[in-house]
Amino acid sequence: MALIRSWLDSANDAGCPFPLNNLPYGVFSVAGDMPRCGAAIGDMIVDLAECETRGLLDAGGTFARPQLNDFMALGRARWDKVRARLTDLLAEGSAGDVPLVPMADATRHLPIQVTEYTDFYASRNHAFNVGVLFRGPENALPPQWTHMPIGYNGRASSVVVSGTPVRRPMGQVKGESGPEWVPCRRLDLELELGAIVGQPSQMGSRVSVDGAEDMIFGYVLLNDWSARDIQAWEYQPLGPFQSKAFATTISPWIVTQAALEPFRCKGAERANPLLPHLQESRPGLYDLAVGWSMNGQVMCRTNYNVMYYSSAQQLAHHSSSGCPMRVGDLLGSGTISGPSPDQVGALLEMTEGGKTPITVAGRARIFIEDGDEVTLFATAQGDGYQIGFGPCTGTVLPAQP
Amino acid sequence: MALIRSWLDSANDAGCPFPLNNLPYGVFSVAGDMPRCGAAIGDMIVDLAECETRGLLDAGGTFARPQLNDFMALGRARWDKVRARLTDLLAEGSAGDVPLVPMADATRHLPIQVTEYTDFYASRNHAFNVGVLFRGPENALPPQWTHMPIGYNGRASSVVVSGTPVRRPMGQVKGESGPEWVPCRRLDLELELGAIVGQPSQMGSRVSVDGAEDMIFGYVLLNDWSARDIQAWEYQPLGPFQSKAFATTISPWIVTQAALEPFRCKGAERANPLLPHLQESRPGLYDLAVGWSMNGQVMCRTNYNVMYYSSAQQLAHHSSSGCPMRVGDLLGSGTISGPSPDQVGALLEMTEGGKTPITVAGRARIFIEDGDEVTLFATAQGDGYQIGFGPCTGTVLPAQP
Repeated sequence: MALIRSWLDSANDAGCPFPLNNLPYGVFSVAGDMPRCGAAIGDMIVDLAECETRGLLDAGGTFARPQLNDFMALGRARWDKVRARLTDLLAEGSAGDVPLVPMADATRHLPIQVTEYTDFYASRNHAFNVGVLFRGPENALPPQWTHMPIGYNGRASSVVVSGTPVRRPMGQVKGESGPEWVPCRRLDLELELGAIVGQPSQMGSRVSVDGAEDMIFGYVLLNDWSARDIQAWEYQPLGPFQSKAFATTISPWIVTQAALEPFRCKGAERANPLLPHLQESRPGLYDLAVGWSMNGQVMCRTNYNVMYYSSAQQLAHHSSSGCPMRVGDLLGSGTISGPSPDQVGALLEMTEGGKTPITVAGRARIFIEDGDEVTLFATAQGDGYQIGFGPCTGTVLPAQP
Repeated sequence: MALIRSWLDSANDAGCPFPLNNLPYGVFSVAGDMPRCGAAIGDMIVDLAECETRGLLDAGGTFARPQLNDFMALGRARWDKVRARLTDLLAEGSAGDVPLVPMADATRHLPIQVTEYTDFYASRNHAFNVGVLFRGPENALPPQWTHMPIGYNGRASSVVVSGTPVRRPMGQVKGESGPEWVPCRRLDLELELGAIVGQPSQMGSRVSVDGAEDMIFGYVLLNDWSARDIQAWEYQPLGPFQSKAFATTISPWIVTQAALEPFRCKGAERANPLLPHLQESRPGLYDLAVGWSMNGQVMCRTNYNVMYYSSAQQLAHHSSSGCPMRVGDLLGSGTISGPSPDQVGALLEMTEGGKTPITVAGRARIFIEDGDEVTLFATAQGDGYQIGFGPCTGTVLPAQP
């Protein structure tokens, strides 16, 4: 697929993350006015609420709300219609009377009200690497791992938008002579993609992998900040809890499934066939270059296509017990890690559990220090255009003992 | 404390679960009209929405809503004021012009919109018994267990009100020659108390145990239905997921902290001192007789005072990383199990992991069969009165393969 040219010049630049092919959705405000829905195009934001007011498009008034949940609830047919209409309005040759706000003037807000947050564990490299560090090589990969997506319920209340500072957590850790209450000493990031559920499922019913695809509105970058020392002490037998609950950062723009469609691809090789309800009728991953940087230095470049399970498979599994899914549910992909040390999505893996320091801007690092800025990035490379997510950034503040 | 007499005779009966001392809150409707807030008294429900309309009390119009979240958000001073006013209105000698609906005519609804659901693990007997079955006696009690409340995030979307049928889940389990996709074969209950968070905390701040007490609006009975075969296959290393996600049943009435205050008592003996942020300035448990029945036969009687951690300690721990708590958060206590087999809150323990069948109404049982009705109950015994919760009931429907 080639670039769809816009009358807005900045959208036609080959390096622009927001060409007309992308049109990601977010929530923004300007100079403290009411947050409302927008779409990114070039270096501007389309004021979608104002578009509705002017009668340029019809989303049932939902774009005036401070989150995209109500728009998502309208369903895929409306998503497609609004996207087609926006593409028409912004395409080269169109009249061009579209209300735009310079992106540089706008504040981005959390694009959805996060209903519930579930985090998965779908990179085999990551699961193995972390398993070795927590449980040794013989118990590294749990026996069920290649048979179903493993996930746990995370905490929705602490999901924040890119740019929000992240406070280092206090927590209980295992000390030399008993438990200690300390500032986290092993603060880490996790490079993930987050899938946004845009349509509900009923309690007691299951969703197929194809049905799950239809429910996914789009994707964000997601940093599942992790306190490894708190995690090691708390996580058996019920899983991570406070070690993950203090903050999860997502990027401000939701890149739609439609924008990613040209980049659809297969994931990692299967170790065994999946049970029928988890099988997919077409490849469910995306060829999406992802990575992360610290204090401006790129530390990792990998690809989302290393994953073993797609978001649609994870969503199908999530509903497999009859668990009802809701508009605004956020599903973390799990840490995206490739096979080599410069392809891993967490410091725990990169430093081999803290044994091998790395160098960031000339200084040694094992885990994240106060003042460090961590940024996730992602790009799908099309023919003369890119699909970007905008950065997913957070700076770490000192703990408050 | 003695019975507070009401002009409503049915509330003065020594066996009535809803005397004027109780006044639990719920949401009800009659003959399909709009769900609204009510309070149970004797065999009647006070129509709190109509009370506001008539100017009998002031809750800012929140009682007309189909959940108690907006009322809870008003805060403890208002909770106390409304309770005092209701007590005046219903007390013997009062004029008695209060809108009442016969409880028998009303449908009960979920009393709150469950924001997020967290489940803990605070009975030492239960943690040890289940630990033996899942991991053997030497690894039964995790080393951190006596140092902090262990919990995990559950699924809020599948919390239902008492009386809602529960569909047996399908799920992936470990088979003889690989994973199988089957109806759950080891369906279990968990007898728990649920604490309802009525006030929020800020992200990045921590709540003390005393502060946590102030945030708790009240308590419900909670059945954390569990699919033990699905759980055994999925739960390592990230904890229970689909094995718990299909349904959680709560009782329709929220018994307030105020009603339970006379029953405050100490919990289980401590194995070691707690770190300062988890220490309580006064006992945090309640002398509350709890139990469960199956198909009308009482199978277990125990007491909430066997627990090792109070809901306030659990809430303090929940916020210890800086995790923000919100109005409507639901915290499960963990299964309430006393030391003997007729005091345990789950079939997994009662049947020793399925090895020792029990007899229910003349028929052998290991786990829950289709058509079985499980009911939790709880009573605090005062001086000439009782505080009840109303039943927490669910009947199991066959799986839909």
